Amino acid sequence: MSDNPSPALQVALAYYQAWTGKDIAAAMSHLADDIVCDAPAGRIQGAQAYRQFLGPFAEMLISTELLAAFGDETRAVLVYDTRTPPVASGPGAECLTIHDGKIVYNRFIFDRLPFEAARRAGD
Amino acid sequence: MSDNPSPALQVALAYYQAWTGKDIAAAMSHLADDIVCDAPAGRIQGAQAYRQFLGPFAEMLISTELLAAFGDETRAVLVYDTRTPPVASGPGAECLTIHDGKIVYNRFIFDRLPFEAARRAGD
Repeated sequence: MSDNPSPALQVALAYYQAWTGKDIAAAMSHLADDIVCDAPAGRIQGAQAYRQFLGPFAEMLISTELLAAFGDETRAVLVYDTRTPPVASGPGAECLTIHDGKIVYNRFIFDRLPFEAARRAGD
Repeated sequence: MSDNPSPALQVALAYYQAWTGKDIAAAMSHLADDIVCDAPAGRIQGAQAYRQFLGPFAEMLISTELLAAFGDETRAVLVYDTRTPPVASGPGAECLTIHDGKIVYNRFIFDRLPFEAARRAGD
């Protein structure tokens, strides 16, 4: 991780600190209204849909650990681990594209299987 | 992606080009014998276990697309999409630590759910 983050990485880190701090409104301030996110379950279009995707997960967070953060002028990658009640270690990667200071695209990668297993066990 | 990759990123890219090119022997040449990989299904220890993990997946590859690659002196992150017979789009992220020119640690993130669903459908 750089001591002198690129413009895109600065936005990515501000977004990450906000959502993992459960301040979804602050996280949203870094998203373009027409953000597109390719997530494991499919494409999410628009900031409100993104909020519905990320908000409930953020609410569940017990802790997070940032494992890597890199960026250049327009893109950033974040890799982190998450701890939630259903899943003790649920790492994720976000590959973000930033235009004009806002996140316009996110390729969001995580393993749904342990979350799905926990959901089924709870049914 | 940089035109002037860091030492760690050079190793990561050579490893990536090898395994996605199905040259597992070449990929292995970039791994430390005692590599540790935290993968979705759990910890993989040692180069032979890593080969058993990655080799069968590499054999299935129809195509891959590198989406992002960043690194510094000791770490690199690769984000890519994969196409295989069971899963049309199976993105992955690898967060690699490199010592003395070899990959010593990998946090490997991908969504197991579509692969598991395809496996069950084929049973």
